[in-house]
Amino acid sequence: MATTAVSVTDTCLAAKAASRRLAALPTTVKDAALLAIADGLEQRTQEILEANARDMEAGRENGLGAALLDRLELTPGRIATIAAQARDIASLTDPVGEVVEGRRLPNGLDVRKVRVPLGVIAVVYEARPNVTIDATALCLKSGNAIVLRGSSSAAHSNAILATVASEAATSAGVPEGAVSLVAGGGREELAELATQSGVVDLVIPRGGEGLKNALRGVATVPVIYAASGNCHVYVDAAADLAWAQEIAVNAKVQRPSACNAAETLLVHADVAAAFLPGALRALRDAGVELRVDARARALAGEQLAGELLDATRADWDTEFLALTLAVAVVDGLDEAIDHINAHGSGHSEAIVSGDAAALRAFELGVDAACLYLNASTRFTDGAEFGMGAEIGNSTQKLHARGPIGMRELCSAKYVVQGDGHVRP
Amino acid sequence: MATTAVSVTDTCLAAKAASRRLAALPTTVKDAALLAIADGLEQRTQEILEANARDMEAGRENGLGAALLDRLELTPGRIATIAAQARDIASLTDPVGEVVEGRRLPNGLDVRKVRVPLGVIAVVYEARPNVTIDATALCLKSGNAIVLRGSSSAAHSNAILATVASEAATSAGVPEGAVSLVAGGGREELAELATQSGVVDLVIPRGGEGLKNALRGVATVPVIYAASGNCHVYVDAAADLAWAQEIAVNAKVQRPSACNAAETLLVHADVAAAFLPGALRALRDAGVELRVDARARALAGEQLAGELLDATRADWDTEFLALTLAVAVVDGLDEAIDHINAHGSGHSEAIVSGDAAALRAFELGVDAACLYLNASTRFTDGAEFGMGAEIGNSTQKLHARGPIGMRELCSAKYVVQGDGHVRP
Repeated sequence: MATTAVSVTDTCLAAKAASRRLAALPTTVKDAALLAIADGLEQRTQEILEANARDMEAGRENGLGAALLDRLELTPGRIATIAAQARDIASLTDPVGEVVEGRRLPNGLDVRKVRVPLGVIAVVYEARPNVTIDATALCLKSGNAIVLRGSSSAAHSNAILATVASEAATSAGVPEGAVSLVAGGGREELAELATQSGVVDLVIPRGGEGLKNALRGVATVPVIYAASGNCHVYVDAAADLAWAQEIAVNAKVQRPSACNAAETLLVHADVAAAFLPGALRALRDAGVELRVDARARALAGEQLAGELLDATRADWDTEFLALTLAVAVVDGLDEAIDHINAHGSGHSEAIVSGDAAALRAFELGVDAACLYLNASTRFTDGAEFGMGAEIGNSTQKLHARGPIGMRELCSAKYVVQGDGHVRP
Repeated sequence: MATTAVSVTDTCLAAKAASRRLAALPTTVKDAALLAIADGLEQRTQEILEANARDMEAGRENGLGAALLDRLELTPGRIATIAAQARDIASLTDPVGEVVEGRRLPNGLDVRKVRVPLGVIAVVYEARPNVTIDATALCLKSGNAIVLRGSSSAAHSNAILATVASEAATSAGVPEGAVSLVAGGGREELAELATQSGVVDLVIPRGGEGLKNALRGVATVPVIYAASGNCHVYVDAAADLAWAQEIAVNAKVQRPSACNAAETLLVHADVAAAFLPGALRALRDAGVELRVDARARALAGEQLAGELLDATRADWDTEFLALTLAVAVVDGLDEAIDHINAHGSGHSEAIVSGDAAALRAFELGVDAACLYLNASTRFTDGAEFGMGAEIGNSTQKLHARGPIGMRELCSAKYVVQGDGHVRP
């Protein structure tokens, strides 16, 4: 179980064995497991808070910053939210067994492409202990065994959460080994986990660039790297300028630390004089630092002149993750598309325009996971998209692009049924 | 163009630029390009044969074996077949623009998940020059630019075929740079191609284990490794034994060099005495070398005793790719499933049974790309499955599992349309 000194390899092998039975488990059993986990979290809140207090104390002693301590902290309210999330996931449609496509072949063979679990998913994450339960619920509901590897700063919190989840899941009929936490948050454990070819089917890192780079160096099993987001809002010549201002402000300000927040505003030259003075004032009033190119500065109006910074080359490639926005004027849609394809990270890109041809050209020409036509980039999110919960957002093009929901935690099998068919 | 001394990186960058325009190209233009390629192959058959003759001559001088020379050789008939294949691909449904799923969200946003090309696909291949055209046709029809890297033994053949394809495609309106062949078949070119992160979106190797291992060592861009196949036929206690024999013989004999040919026959103990003597005779009569376990030997009957070899441990893990079959008796379905999951390569696995519960348990329990219920493993093939042509078979679980058709050469975009929507 979670806290005993079992090797990473043995933990993964046990998860593989469990995954064979999980793949055939009825939805009712999986849902019962998720509800039992939610109940367990509520019943054992005191135990969880005590374990978390130990991590918090160690964190303070080790000089963790206020932001990290806040991520680490569990409260009765936060535990209730985690439990509610597990119940929400129980209420989602089971992706396993969905027939993706199918047909009867001319020779009478029936071919069905059926969604199946991937098998064993390893989730490696940093300070937030809630990931222990969120990721477990998504993996179990999609029929996958999960191997968790958290950070040492949350070791006590993660251990009790994984224990609660594992015991509750087993009590509901999920096979032993389906939920486990590898002890030790070191780089050796990470490397051992990421090289379990044929055992671990996917690694999902949830954390900063340091964690991702550590994985890039060692992983031999597939990894989906949750994305960074250098996102743009482009205001076209035919834009409704009121919409454009609302969208620009929302995309930047509503949650600047999110990967789907905008980092650069591009404005068509034909409307820059009409748009920029008001929009930049609104952004400034919302606390945004503005880094503008020469053309934007020239059209921004006298009033703001002293408050604008000059954009540098590097700004076009920077995910500020803060109340900072780069602003440029472009000569047209093609230049905007080229800028976005050159500098964007392929995450979420918005155009504001009333011109159907411009919207269509943007849709076809911009190479990104999510394109917004007259809407804010901030909607990129599994729950917003109606996919239920997500375990991250992908900017890679293979397997999963955009929000990683339960379907993206699945593979597929072709099932071909005949009556003694042989190939002539 | 194909034969000039442009660097691999420059070739890939030109392909990337072309891919942006290819993504928005109407199906009619792509189809016209494929038909022009087919016409070009027929019109320039003489030129192609002359180039091929040079490769064949060099191959003979370098002592290439008869099998390799056969793969290398082009004839007027083979060129006509390649042209017909390009026309077939033109007749397939364009996967680009297919709406995979979509809905209107409660807030009025319309979300569509739309199939889009991956971008730039690199195909690295060995002696067969026909891959030059087959892969080009599949990539162009699915809106992708292609960078080809063949082997030096087919350099002249590949160069003329790529030239014909590129010129024909351009004449039909496909952007320059969409089809290119990198000069030089060395490991340096392979490494340069496989490390074009952000430029090449996917590498597909079509060749032997040596080529795949060379890629595994260097690739930083995604690779889909076409599969090896250690495939099984399991004859259940409730099998129709006539079907079982036909399927076993077909799966082994119909084309033993194919990855979907069977390598091991598993027989339920309850029917082994009734099944094995006749089935093994039929296999022997078809020229199959039989490597049997002790239980199979005991039940095979006197008549064959002298012709059976003893299976070794290694035989269960071997893809013979020849008229050789390992045979074992198992105590039941669970043992068969465990054997297949332990030794199979996750390619194509067959059960013969009249018992619905056994078929269902096999379907749920065996972890493989294609499962056959009362049918031969030999049907794993994009054309057989009604997907049109394929560029290989995948045994990996992410992105593409089973035949790699044009849909598998695509990614998807979420397109979200609103009326000035911002996130509250």
